[in-house]
Amino acid sequence: VSLATARARDADDRLAQARDRFSVPDGLIYLDGNSLGAMPRGAPARIARTVEREWGDDLITSWNRHGWIDLPQRCAAKLGPIVDADPDDLLIGDSTSVNLFKLLVAALGLTGRRVILTEEGNFPTDLYVASGITRLFPDVELRRVPRDRIVESLGSDIAILMLTHVDYRSGWRHHMPALSSAAWDCGALSLWDVSHTAGAMSMSLSGSGADMAVGCGYKYLNGGPGAPSFCYIRREWQEKMRSPIEGWMGHANPFDFAPDYSPAAGMKRFLAGTPSILALAALEAGLDTFEGLNLDHLEDKADALGDFMIEAMAQLCPDLPLASPRRAVDRGSHLVFEHPDAYAIIQALIARGVIGDYREPGLMRFGLAPLTTRYQDVWNAASAIADVLASGEYTSSHFARRSAVT
Amino acid sequence: VSLATARARDADDRLAQARDRFSVPDGLIYLDGNSLGAMPRGAPARIARTVEREWGDDLITSWNRHGWIDLPQRCAAKLGPIVDADPDDLLIGDSTSVNLFKLLVAALGLTGRRVILTEEGNFPTDLYVASGITRLFPDVELRRVPRDRIVESLGSDIAILMLTHVDYRSGWRHHMPALSSAAWDCGALSLWDVSHTAGAMSMSLSGSGADMAVGCGYKYLNGGPGAPSFCYIRREWQEKMRSPIEGWMGHANPFDFAPDYSPAAGMKRFLAGTPSILALAALEAGLDTFEGLNLDHLEDKADALGDFMIEAMAQLCPDLPLASPRRAVDRGSHLVFEHPDAYAIIQALIARGVIGDYREPGLMRFGLAPLTTRYQDVWNAASAIADVLASGEYTSSHFARRSAVT
Repeated sequence: VSLATARARDADDRLAQARDRFSVPDGLIYLDGNSLGAMPRGAPARIARTVEREWGDDLITSWNRHGWIDLPQRCAAKLGPIVDADPDDLLIGDSTSVNLFKLLVAALGLTGRRVILTEEGNFPTDLYVASGITRLFPDVELRRVPRDRIVESLGSDIAILMLTHVDYRSGWRHHMPALSSAAWDCGALSLWDVSHTAGAMSMSLSGSGADMAVGCGYKYLNGGPGAPSFCYIRREWQEKMRSPIEGWMGHANPFDFAPDYSPAAGMKRFLAGTPSILALAALEAGLDTFEGLNLDHLEDKADALGDFMIEAMAQLCPDLPLASPRRAVDRGSHLVFEHPDAYAIIQALIARGVIGDYREPGLMRFGLAPLTTRYQDVWNAASAIADVLASGEYTSSHFARRSAVT
Repeated sequence: VSLATARARDADDRLAQARDRFSVPDGLIYLDGNSLGAMPRGAPARIARTVEREWGDDLITSWNRHGWIDLPQRCAAKLGPIVDADPDDLLIGDSTSVNLFKLLVAALGLTGRRVILTEEGNFPTDLYVASGITRLFPDVELRRVPRDRIVESLGSDIAILMLTHVDYRSGWRHHMPALSSAAWDCGALSLWDVSHTAGAMSMSLSGSGADMAVGCGYKYLNGGPGAPSFCYIRREWQEKMRSPIEGWMGHANPFDFAPDYSPAAGMKRFLAGTPSILALAALEAGLDTFEGLNLDHLEDKADALGDFMIEAMAQLCPDLPLASPRRAVDRGSHLVFEHPDAYAIIQALIARGVIGDYREPGLMRFGLAPLTTRYQDVWNAASAIADVLASGEYTSSHFARRSAVT
């Protein structure tokens, strides 16, 4: 492979036009869509309209006049096709951690079982939230097992199988239908964190057998820093579940200001407080970047970008071990490579305008967001990594660890 | 009183210059700061900078480069003087409902007692959240008593006295130091919802004896629709309390991605997921509108505006009963008046460019935000109410109830 083959692939890319929907700074190679998606070109105007015209001019009347009250549902309608779920089975709002808390506690209320089964390498905040729940309810247990022991651990005491679809470090992608079905067979509910999947891979919440899911708005959905998150519950459970955080926006008639709580029908009962309208406006601009795209191409391109990067790295940086699955079907839309000086190398790459993430322990992560990443970006990133390694520039004290945020 | 006396008072108003910090549409009389504060003039540029320069150009590096990671603390530093609390005792993020949930559950963990005492007319979302907690923990009881029975109900079984400082309907203002002290004397913790106080009244969280407080960012703090909320915990309890929602931003070292949760020191442990940076940027612009003001004048002006409106209404609409306390010391920064057709009257006023709120049952609410409200606005509003009542225009079917949002 070469820059020329990269360019040829870009010319054939059926999603190439999607990149024009984003503002990516000139000269920057941004391989960090799985920490923060790039800014949609439509975002500044969409947000400015909400700020200046809706908030500034129309003030409180905007809840009706500009449909603020329906904005979570409007976002759900746009998210529906991306994750293949009926918008009525989705809810937008709060953070992924808060939504995960709501779903876990609500799901425990559905069952007499008391064990949450998860993978020991699951995303930390998912482990923290679940572990926090065991402090609240001492009869609840969080059981962490290695990936290869998940299926055999699905016993009759398991209430919920909680997994992240695409691992935030290795990029390992679980087989959602098979594991959801295994959970179902043992009478457990499945709860998927699809934060590193939604917007990057073709996926089907409604067709996967998942009982519940949560996901992030600021990664591949391009909703802006700290964007609202989303959650999904299979239709048949919705009316049987109650949110542990019953706030007024989840009330059947919030503006009646009745003294007692009656949960709204369906997913709306999982709303709690008033959502940030500015954050939802930005998320809507992010979701709009998917409009009219053939979503089957998402995964094709993510797979092909990953395969191309593996090939380019093998050629240019043959000594850098890949720590992600080699087979596209086993991975999501990012790759990690190992190096003892991974932190410093990532800093040296950032100084060269190639943005990836450092992740503990010793991992360089490169997110290949299919809407914004070109094959030539991947080639140029691989070349930059080779240059940084060959020059040894990463050993400069300038790139040593100093900041809290990596 | 008259338009002339109103103008004379405006000329003497020591907070008059604060109104220039806001964009209030020409000709609009906006008496709804307690549902959504007006837009600060600085907000559009502040938010556009965050969107275009920080998100768009600097992307993920903005967590360090533009201090996103410290934005909740930066907002806390600006909120501190407004509510008279050490910024280290404040936390910004999530919604008021979610924060109230966190504080109530965490506080119940501090004590062996199991009763949350509250006022039966407390703000519905506060009642809903607390009532939801009794569903989660069946040994917890929510005890609702009339306002005049609060003190006598403070027995040795009360874990938490949960009150709203300024009633969202009547505007009744509790005496925070006296009630906090009464709670303390019986060994209970006090938890105050100061949503209708912060930014409207002079107040002192640190000096009031309150153990905990929550408050809203989008009312008198002018943080924009659905702005992040804040919470306060008295220093001595912070390290003894654990949030029920333990997410990664509340971890002592979030970027270590350790498998187990170690709560951050102090208030930071009450962070959960990633906060919306756009919502925080807007809130910061709202908090900046207080910069350099003598905050003692807030309450003086709120009191004087209320007294003036009561006088103007007595003169112009003598038959409309005031349903708020007559004495300024007993009320917050809004007034309510009763009328069987209150809903239609509010709609007719909106059509005339006078914005108030309808609140069940049969209440017209007018928020007198001291930073943006002029005495002439109050006079003109009272005149408009008189005109609407005299003309009977509110009986038009055009103003009949139809929308979900009031």
